[in-house]
Amino acid sequence: MRAYQYETIEMTFPGTGNLEAAFVKDDEIVTVRGFQSSENTVTLRFLPLRAGRHTFEITGAVRESGIIDVLPAREGHHGPVRAVGTCLKYADGTLCRTYGTTVYALAHQPDSLIDETMETLKNTPFNKIRLCVFPKHFLYNENEPEFFAFERRENGAWDTSMPCFAFWDRFDKRLCQLFDMGFQVDLILFHPYDHWGFSSMSREDDLRYLDYVIRRFAAYPNIWWSLANEYDVIPAKSMEDWYDIEKYVSEYDPFHHLIGNHHCISLWPHERPCTTHVSLQTGQLYRIPEWLEKYRKPVLIDECGYEGNLGELWGSLSGEELTARFWRTFALGGYCTHGETFLNENDLEEIVFWSKGGKLRGGSINRIAFLREIMDALPGPLEPENAGFCAVRGKSPEELEELLASVHQGMRVYYERVLAMDPVERERFLDGQVQYRGRCGDEAILVYCDIQTFGQLRLDLPDRERYTVEVIDTWNMTREVQIRDAHGQVTVKLPGRPWMAVLARKNH
Amino acid sequence: MRAYQYETIEMTFPGTGNLEAAFVKDDEIVTVRGFQSSENTVTLRFLPLRAGRHTFEITGAVRESGIIDVLPAREGHHGPVRAVGTCLKYADGTLCRTYGTTVYALAHQPDSLIDETMETLKNTPFNKIRLCVFPKHFLYNENEPEFFAFERRENGAWDTSMPCFAFWDRFDKRLCQLFDMGFQVDLILFHPYDHWGFSSMSREDDLRYLDYVIRRFAAYPNIWWSLANEYDVIPAKSMEDWYDIEKYVSEYDPFHHLIGNHHCISLWPHERPCTTHVSLQTGQLYRIPEWLEKYRKPVLIDECGYEGNLGELWGSLSGEELTARFWRTFALGGYCTHGETFLNENDLEEIVFWSKGGKLRGGSINRIAFLREIMDALPGPLEPENAGFCAVRGKSPEELEELLASVHQGMRVYYERVLAMDPVERERFLDGQVQYRGRCGDEAILVYCDIQTFGQLRLDLPDRERYTVEVIDTWNMTREVQIRDAHGQVTVKLPGRPWMAVLARKNH
Repeated sequence: MRAYQYETIEMTFPGTGNLEAAFVKDDEIVTVRGFQSSENTVTLRFLPLRAGRHTFEITGAVRESGIIDVLPAREGHHGPVRAVGTCLKYADGTLCRTYGTTVYALAHQPDSLIDETMETLKNTPFNKIRLCVFPKHFLYNENEPEFFAFERRENGAWDTSMPCFAFWDRFDKRLCQLFDMGFQVDLILFHPYDHWGFSSMSREDDLRYLDYVIRRFAAYPNIWWSLANEYDVIPAKSMEDWYDIEKYVSEYDPFHHLIGNHHCISLWPHERPCTTHVSLQTGQLYRIPEWLEKYRKPVLIDECGYEGNLGELWGSLSGEELTARFWRTFALGGYCTHGETFLNENDLEEIVFWSKGGKLRGGSINRIAFLREIMDALPGPLEPENAGFCAVRGKSPEELEELLASVHQGMRVYYERVLAMDPVERERFLDGQVQYRGRCGDEAILVYCDIQTFGQLRLDLPDRERYTVEVIDTWNMTREVQIRDAHGQVTVKLPGRPWMAVLARKNH
Repeated sequence: MRAYQYETIEMTFPGTGNLEAAFVKDDEIVTVRGFQSSENTVTLRFLPLRAGRHTFEITGAVRESGIIDVLPAREGHHGPVRAVGTCLKYADGTLCRTYGTTVYALAHQPDSLIDETMETLKNTPFNKIRLCVFPKHFLYNENEPEFFAFERRENGAWDTSMPCFAFWDRFDKRLCQLFDMGFQVDLILFHPYDHWGFSSMSREDDLRYLDYVIRRFAAYPNIWWSLANEYDVIPAKSMEDWYDIEKYVSEYDPFHHLIGNHHCISLWPHERPCTTHVSLQTGQLYRIPEWLEKYRKPVLIDECGYEGNLGELWGSLSGEELTARFWRTFALGGYCTHGETFLNENDLEEIVFWSKGGKLRGGSINRIAFLREIMDALPGPLEPENAGFCAVRGKSPEELEELLASVHQGMRVYYERVLAMDPVERERFLDGQVQYRGRCGDEAILVYCDIQTFGQLRLDLPDRERYTVEVIDTWNMTREVQIRDAHGQVTVKLPGRPWMAVLARKNH
């Protein structure tokens, strides 16, 4: 039997009941558990993370063993995404810059609409999507899905021991399709927008559900686990429940996919060891450096508001604003997620992209593509630079002394005042002073000017290198080299419009 | 001798030396002190705040007494501005909505430029100006003035006992001109942008200077005292110095003009009894309700950034953004101040309006005029409405219980989460949740939609009244009545563009 590193291996056997398989390479054993894939078949899925000869042994309802020769990864296959420091990287070490979008209830729409959505997604810059396992009942989301994750008992309650195969087969198909399209899938395991009872099942049902999801989906390279969307507004679940859910997912996933938990009001304790990254709902992007510093994990702005025209704050951003939120986030070393919430005045049944999919029409999409082109060409990840007064943030007393010694003498009193502030008031003051600047060592320095209509910008570049300085109009999508061999202090001329950026890249 | 209420009375006598005059009406005595107005004249200025017969008695270098019949205020004369609760009102009780601008070093420019500036100001919506007594040395401000407040001693030091009459005569002329143009003058007594030593004089010199300013200018109806611009970054002055300066100004000003102190980093303790209003430098306009609540005084955003194209954060706002800052401020019941900082690439000597005056060219001016038209037509002052999650702010436990009982059941868990947050984190979270809504009792309700591109907005109007609901495009300066007899819950259609506002006015 032959297979490829980072590609799912699937084996299906007739019958019912439990199956378990141990895959062994050298001294490493990975145990995977099978799942009932139809009324009379059981399926085992394995994801080889390493190339080379594996042996396997299946126990339970079937007893079988064998050898798999796993060939090195084929082009374009990089394995599951991992959190490495504050960055996302594929298992093979390749940097993974995710440009997310959101179609929460994608899996619960009619096939024709999902097909249309897939076509739409192919022509976008996105490579990550957030979507829910359970259907969504919320504003603009009142259609009943055709299939649910489980069959019902006679009393109408969900029977979590009886998966609805049609539901999961459809889900599989779409996950594979998304994989082929290059998408990471941030799979939302629970959420509060519910009138079917999925958000308030018993502990036993929760775990049986998770067990099935993990058995079925964990061998997909592109799966991430989002424990919940807005975990904190699911009244039926306590923090203890969430910790147990996290532990369960973490322990039973043989391939160690990313685990995050997305909040509405109260941040998840992202410092928890099994939480791999910081999944946030916020428009306060100026706080990204603080969160990076605090958690030392990748910061994903999984919800910063959506481009659209709803009557709600979260669904009424302009294309300019959502584009700006992407730039703010990426300039500060975070990852941002898109969503679109346009309502047609005359639609009989609303199809709002952020939930159901369909077509996109926002102004931000092309601009995110333009951003992606620039980001993907950077030699490495950006780290935020605390510029201006924010330079005092996260500094030790010695570093602060150094900072004070380095600032222009006339400015010293300003910094002294900042340092003398009450700490709480200082943080709120500094929230208004953040500049969107990131750097990739001495290789690249990015300044996103945001709403500022600078006529010029002073850059302090390392003196020992030479840089090519580009002026970027992030909205009109133009870039122009202004200085070719810049070093030290340079002044970049800017057109006095908002949404500009300046990128200095080291010459090689 | 006849005079008018709220108009300055001036008497000049030959000679030198101290003069003091007691003006008596009924049982009220107001003592004013004269000032050397030229080498051989002394001048006394008095501002009658009440109509009716006054007697006066002059003592000192001149001894004279007499009667003044003060006639009731002429049209357009309302007296000095006072702080009444969180509002500004003229002495006669008329609401005073100030629309400020900034020409810090106006008084230190050549006459031709000041004349040009005055012409410019006549065609603006502004009725308040911030300007400095001392000249300004700062970026884009390096011209030496022709006259200074004092003559120099032989050793080059300032002789605060020797006013430079040419300087003060020019100043008088411009203050009177501004008064005739309807401008309040927020006179900045100290500031840090100095290379002449005015910001680091001795205590004795400071007080002698203040003494002269007060004797000379306090009888002008349109004077406000701004103790300083950026008081906190004048290294030579301690808080004790500022308290003494405040005390001095407050005690020696017979007409009790407004007293404020403007900060850069550290807020002035605006709760001080002699501080009449809250003068702020901030772009964090979402904090206005908090400051109104805390100080119970008028909140003046005296510096929120300037429209222009400088390389600095504070001098590079678009017209759209400065216009938005005015709307945010006014919608929340504050007062906002404009400034313009355009740099011409090819100017040999820069004339940046915010400091020197000249011509205005920004996009915000006409929009501020449009805002003013709308605000001035409101029947009374707006008070901020803490909408959305911010409704929890400043509420007692009983009020919170009431709030929780009133919110839609599905939303209750969200509010509970907000209430359960750590208080510091909650404030920072709520900073990002502020909506710009103000109301004038049941008379008028204003929602400024800011950057939100709402396609619709739900308004909760009192059910017992009938309202005319207008949709306002604050940037394109259009207003359109959409509903004529609205009451209770209404849905207003909006065009999905940013910078819209909705105004509901009670029908009469």
